[in-house]
Amino acid sequence: MKYEIRFLPSETITHAPEGTTIFNAANWAGLAIDSTCGGRGTCGKCKVRVLKGNAPVREADRKFLSPSELDEGWRLSCRAVLHSDCVVDIPRLMGNPKAALLGYGHHVILNPNVAKVYFELAEPSLQDQRSDLERIVSALDEEGYQVHSGIALWRELPKTLRGSDFKVTAVVVGDNLIAVEPGNTTQSSYGLAVDVGTTSVVTALINLNTGAVEAVKSGLNRQAAFGADVISRVSHTMMEPEGLAELQTRIIETLNDLLDSVTADSGIAREQIYEAVIVGNATMLHLLLGIDPEPISVAPFTPTMTQPVTFRAAEIGLRMHPEARVSTLPHLGAYVGADIVAGILATDLTRNKDGKLRLLIDVGTNGEIVLGSVNGTLSTAAPAGPAFEGAQIKNGMRASTGAIEGIEITPEGDVRLQIIGGDIKPVGIAGSGLVDGVAEMFKVGIVDASGRLLRPEEARGNLPDALVDRLVTVDGVRAFLLSDAESNIVLTQQDIRALQFAKGSIGAGVEVLMQQMGVTASDLHQVLLAGSFGSYINPSSARTIGLVPWVPVEQIVAVGNAAGEGAKIALLSFREREAANRIPEFIEYVELSGRSEFNDIFTSVLGFPTPPRSDNGGAEGLSLPVAIAQITS
Amino acid sequence: MKYEIRFLPSETITHAPEGTTIFNAANWAGLAIDSTCGGRGTCGKCKVRVLKGNAPVREADRKFLSPSELDEGWRLSCRAVLHSDCVVDIPRLMGNPKAALLGYGHHVILNPNVAKVYFELAEPSLQDQRSDLERIVSALDEEGYQVHSGIALWRELPKTLRGSDFKVTAVVVGDNLIAVEPGNTTQSSYGLAVDVGTTSVVTALINLNTGAVEAVKSGLNRQAAFGADVISRVSHTMMEPEGLAELQTRIIETLNDLLDSVTADSGIAREQIYEAVIVGNATMLHLLLGIDPEPISVAPFTPTMTQPVTFRAAEIGLRMHPEARVSTLPHLGAYVGADIVAGILATDLTRNKDGKLRLLIDVGTNGEIVLGSVNGTLSTAAPAGPAFEGAQIKNGMRASTGAIEGIEITPEGDVRLQIIGGDIKPVGIAGSGLVDGVAEMFKVGIVDASGRLLRPEEARGNLPDALVDRLVTVDGVRAFLLSDAESNIVLTQQDIRALQFAKGSIGAGVEVLMQQMGVTASDLHQVLLAGSFGSYINPSSARTIGLVPWVPVEQIVAVGNAAGEGAKIALLSFREREAANRIPEFIEYVELSGRSEFNDIFTSVLGFPTPPRSDNGGAEGLSLPVAIAQITS
Repeated sequence: MKYEIRFLPSETITHAPEGTTIFNAANWAGLAIDSTCGGRGTCGKCKVRVLKGNAPVREADRKFLSPSELDEGWRLSCRAVLHSDCVVDIPRLMGNPKAALLGYGHHVILNPNVAKVYFELAEPSLQDQRSDLERIVSALDEEGYQVHSGIALWRELPKTLRGSDFKVTAVVVGDNLIAVEPGNTTQSSYGLAVDVGTTSVVTALINLNTGAVEAVKSGLNRQAAFGADVISRVSHTMMEPEGLAELQTRIIETLNDLLDSVTADSGIAREQIYEAVIVGNATMLHLLLGIDPEPISVAPFTPTMTQPVTFRAAEIGLRMHPEARVSTLPHLGAYVGADIVAGILATDLTRNKDGKLRLLIDVGTNGEIVLGSVNGTLSTAAPAGPAFEGAQIKNGMRASTGAIEGIEITPEGDVRLQIIGGDIKPVGIAGSGLVDGVAEMFKVGIVDASGRLLRPEEARGNLPDALVDRLVTVDGVRAFLLSDAESNIVLTQQDIRALQFAKGSIGAGVEVLMQQMGVTASDLHQVLLAGSFGSYINPSSARTIGLVPWVPVEQIVAVGNAAGEGAKIALLSFREREAANRIPEFIEYVELSGRSEFNDIFTSVLGFPTPPRSDNGGAEGLSLPVAIAQITS
Repeated sequence: MKYEIRFLPSETITHAPEGTTIFNAANWAGLAIDSTCGGRGTCGKCKVRVLKGNAPVREADRKFLSPSELDEGWRLSCRAVLHSDCVVDIPRLMGNPKAALLGYGHHVILNPNVAKVYFELAEPSLQDQRSDLERIVSALDEEGYQVHSGIALWRELPKTLRGSDFKVTAVVVGDNLIAVEPGNTTQSSYGLAVDVGTTSVVTALINLNTGAVEAVKSGLNRQAAFGADVISRVSHTMMEPEGLAELQTRIIETLNDLLDSVTADSGIAREQIYEAVIVGNATMLHLLLGIDPEPISVAPFTPTMTQPVTFRAAEIGLRMHPEARVSTLPHLGAYVGADIVAGILATDLTRNKDGKLRLLIDVGTNGEIVLGSVNGTLSTAAPAGPAFEGAQIKNGMRASTGAIEGIEITPEGDVRLQIIGGDIKPVGIAGSGLVDGVAEMFKVGIVDASGRLLRPEEARGNLPDALVDRLVTVDGVRAFLLSDAESNIVLTQQDIRALQFAKGSIGAGVEVLMQQMGVTASDLHQVLLAGSFGSYINPSSARTIGLVPWVPVEQIVAVGNAAGEGAKIALLSFREREAANRIPEFIEYVELSGRSEFNDIFTSVLGFPTPPRSDNGGAEGLSLPVAIAQITS
C-alpha cells in the first residue's frame, strides 16, 4: 500500500509505503530536508508543513514546535509517518548544504554519520555538581544529539575535561559518543570506505568535512593464497580447523596494511578515522567477522547475516580510532552481496526518477545481476565459473602485464592484439581478451553460432588464408593461434566452450529476470557493467557473444568500482546509508537453483545471438539469443 | 506540572508529570499492567482503555489494535503519554503474575530484564533463505522483542542452529540478544545482585524464574588492604601510578571469588548467569570500572558518572556468561551513591502511598541521609569520620569476634557487656558498643550533656561506687573502665569526643534537611537505619546520643542490607529498576560543604539531647538536641 506525497515548492511527487516518514520519503525523492540528528527526532530542524493529509502531533513535535505552529500544520518530518496521500511544503534550506559529486553524477549532500561538536563547558562548582558524563551528554542533548557511551570513554573523561579547561570536542558516531578530545578538533574528521573484493581490496580515506578523498589504496586480498574464488575460501574453512581464523587474520592484515598506507600517504592520524563503511560479498564479510561461511556455500545458501551490522573496529582488530565504528551494508542474498547493494546505491538504479529500466551486471566467478527501476527490481546470481578470471583457459591469465586484454580481427584476416604493458610479448589472455577474441572470431565467421571452431578444410576458400592458417591443433585440440611470437598463444575449442558456459549462465540469469519482469532487451535503457572486469570488457564484444542483451552499444556502460563508490556515498551521508539499508525491501531476490526453467534457458543461450536487423533492438524476443539445439565440442 | 490519573477498576489515583507514560504511572502506583517487552512498544500486551483524557493514536497502537478498539479508546499504555488528567481502565491480568517478597514487605512482580524464549524455527530452504540472524530476530520480533546483537553471537549462531535442528532458546537482556542456546533452556535463568561496600561485598545469585535466592555470599572487599575508607582508597590511586588499576583488579578478584562461591554452592553454571545489578557508593563503582575517582574526593566533588550505566561483564573481566550485561543504579551525588538509591527502592521511601515522612540513615565513615516521602525528598552526606568503624578509638575494633557490641549499665552500677562470640574475653569495642557505652554513661550521669566524663571526685557520692571506681586515668587521659579482665578495655574522654564529632556531623546533616523541609522530629513516621552498622546499633542508644532524632524508639527500625535488597529488586523487575533509575529526579541532593549554617548546627548538636517530657515527641523543636555552648575535653 503506497501513498502519494507531493512536495512543494518543487512539485516533486513520490510514492512511499504506509509507515514511511516524510523525512525518509523526501530523502528517497532526492529532496534535502535540514537535520543534524539525521531523523532521530532530537534536533528539531527537519520541520515541514503538512498542507494536506493525516499527521498526528507527536511528542517530539510538542518539544520543538509552538502550539500555533502545530495548528498551522508544522511537524517534524522525521516523526511524521504516512497513513494517507499528502501534500507537504519543505522550507528552503538556509544556505547551501555542502555536497560532493560521487558515483555516477550522484550529488551527495554531506551528512556523515560522524559529528564533531566543540564545547566550552561550564566547570563544575558546588552549585553545579553534575557528573562529567552528564555535563557533556546534556550539552550534546541541547545540540540535538542523544548519545550512548561506554567504559573506554568514561575512563578518559575526567582527565580530558580537566586537562583542557573543559573545552573539548565530542565525537559522535550515530548515537554513540565515542570520544571526547581536548580542544577544538572539529576540522579533523575522517572515515574509511572499503570494498573487500575476493581478489582485491580498495580503501579510500575520506575527509568527512569536505567529501574529499585524502588517499586511496588498493591491494591484493591476502586470502588469495587460499584460492582465487569464494568457494575455495569456504573450502579452506571447512578443511582446516584453523582455516576460518586464518582467513579472518589475512583480510584484517590486508586492511591494516592499507590503513597504514592511506594514513602515511595523507599524513592523517589513524585516531582521527572514526568510522568505516565496508562492503563486499557475503562470504568476504562473513570471513572478515570470523563467521563460518559454510552455510553460504551449500543449499539452501543461507548466510548467518544479510542485514547491515555495526560493530567496534577494535572488535576485529582494525587499527583506526580504538572506539571507531564499522558498518556494513545489507546483502540481497547469499550471492548478491553488500558490494552489489553499494553498486545499486552508486548507480541510483532503484531510485532514478526517470523511471527507466536498467540492468546492472557484475561479471566474475559469480555474475551478480540486478534488473529494475524505481518501479521494481529483481536480482540474482549466476554461477559463471572461473573463465572470466582466466582460469581453466589454456593460455588464460589475470589482467596483468603481458596479458592480451583486447583483440581485433580485421575482415582481411589481420589479428591485432592489445597487450597490457604496451608493445611487449604477450604471455597469455585476460578475460576481456577472451571475450574479444571469441566475439571477433564469431564475427569473421571462424566460429559458428553454436560456438564451433571451423576446421581448416571448411574455412579454406570462404575466409582469408591468413585466418585459416591460424587454425591449428595443439595437443590434439583444435585451436586458433593468436600469437606465434615464440609464445604460441592460442584460443582452443575448449576455451570457447568454457566462455560459452560462463556467459550462458549470466545470460540465462538475465533472461530469467527479464521473463519474470515481462520485459525484453528493447525495454532496457542501460546495461551497466560493474567491477574491474566490467571496466575492461569491450561492450560490443560482450553483446556479440550474448553476455549482455542486444541493446545499442552506447547503452552499455562500464561503471567501474561501483561498490567502492557506494561505500563512499554511504560513508558521507547517513541518509544515503539508510536508503542503502532499505534497498533489500525494494528488490526481490531470485534464487536460480530453485528455478526449473533456468536449465532450459541456459541451454538455449549457450550459442551466440544473431544481431537484430536494425540496431534499435525493437523486435520482441531479440534479447533471447538464437537457440542452439545441441552443443558438441 | 502534574496530572491526575484515576485507574479503574481499582480506583487508584496517582499524579504524574507531563510526558509520563500511562504504563509507568501505573507501575509507579503499584498497579501491574501486562507486558513482556517492558514498555518498549513492541509486545502489544499493555493495552488499556482511556476513558477520559487526551491519548492520540500512535504507530504502535495501529500495529496492535483494530480500528474499532482504537475508537473505543484502547491504547498501548507504554506509548500513551500524559498531557491531561485522565481516567484509565486496566484490564485484569490473565492469571496471577509471579511475585516475590523482597525489601520490607515489598511485593515485587517478577519481570526480570532477562528473558529466555524457546523457538522451534523453520529450517532454511530454497523457498525460505532468510539469514540465520533474521530467522531468530524475526521470531523474537513476533514475540514482542526487538533486539540488537553482536559479533560473538553471530559467530556462534550458524553452528548452534544447525547443531540443534533449529530448536533453540534465545537469551534476551534488555534489548540485546546475548545468546542463542541449543534446545529448551528456559528453566535455567539466573542473575546476580551485588552490593559493593567499602568494607564488604555481598553477592546473591537469584533464580530469575522464581525469585528464589539460590546462594548468597559475602566477603571482605580486597581493596581493604589499601585503607579502610573511600578517602584512603582514592589517595592510593593518586599516590601510586598503578594504584587505580590495582584497586580495580582487587575488587574484580573479590567479585570473581564470590562468583566462584555462589556457583559452587548452588551448582549453577556461570554461563547461566546473564545479568548482574551492582550497587555501591560512587567511589566503589568508579573503581570497579577503572575510572579515576579523584574528582569525587576534592571540591566540588564531581563524579565522572552519576547516571546508571550498562556494560558487558567481560569488559571488566567478571566471570559470568561472556555476553552477560552489568547494570548499575544511579548515584544521587558524590557521596550518596547507588547503594542508597537501592536502599530507597527497597524501603519504598519515595513511593509509599501512605505519604508519610521517613528518614533513612546509613551510618558509616560517611553518613548518608535521605529524608522524605512520596511528596518530596532530600538527601545529603555528612562526613562522620572513622569512629563508627572503631578507628581512632583507643580500644576500637571492627565488629568481629571478641568485640564488645553492646553495653548496659544498670542503675546499681553494674556494667554488662555483650561480646561477639559469646561469653569470651573482650578484646575491643565495636562501633555499636561505643554508641551503647556512651549512651549508657550519659544516662547514668557519668558523662554530662556536653560529653564530659566526670572526675572521680565529682562523681563520688552522687553515683554508685562501683561506677566511680571505674573512672581511671590511662596514659594521662581520663577514661571509663569497661572490663578489667586482664584486657583493661576502656572508653576514654577522647573516644567520647570522637563519637560526638561523628554523630554530630550526621545529626547536623539530618537537621539541615529537616530545616530545609520545614519539618521536625514529630513529623517523622519512621527512622530507618541501613547498613550493617544500622543492624547492630541499639535504637535507644542512637536516640540517646542524638545520632537520630528523638522519636518513639519503636519508630527506629533497622533495615539491614537495604542496598543489597534494592539490587535484588532491580534484578528481578526491570520496572522497579526503571523506577530506581528515576529516583534522582524526585530527590534534591543537598551539598553540606556549600552550606554556611552547617557548621553552626554541627556545633549546636555536639552534645547529647534532653529527652522530651513525654515520649510522643510532640513538642516542636525537640529534634534539635540541647545546644552546648562550648566543648572542652
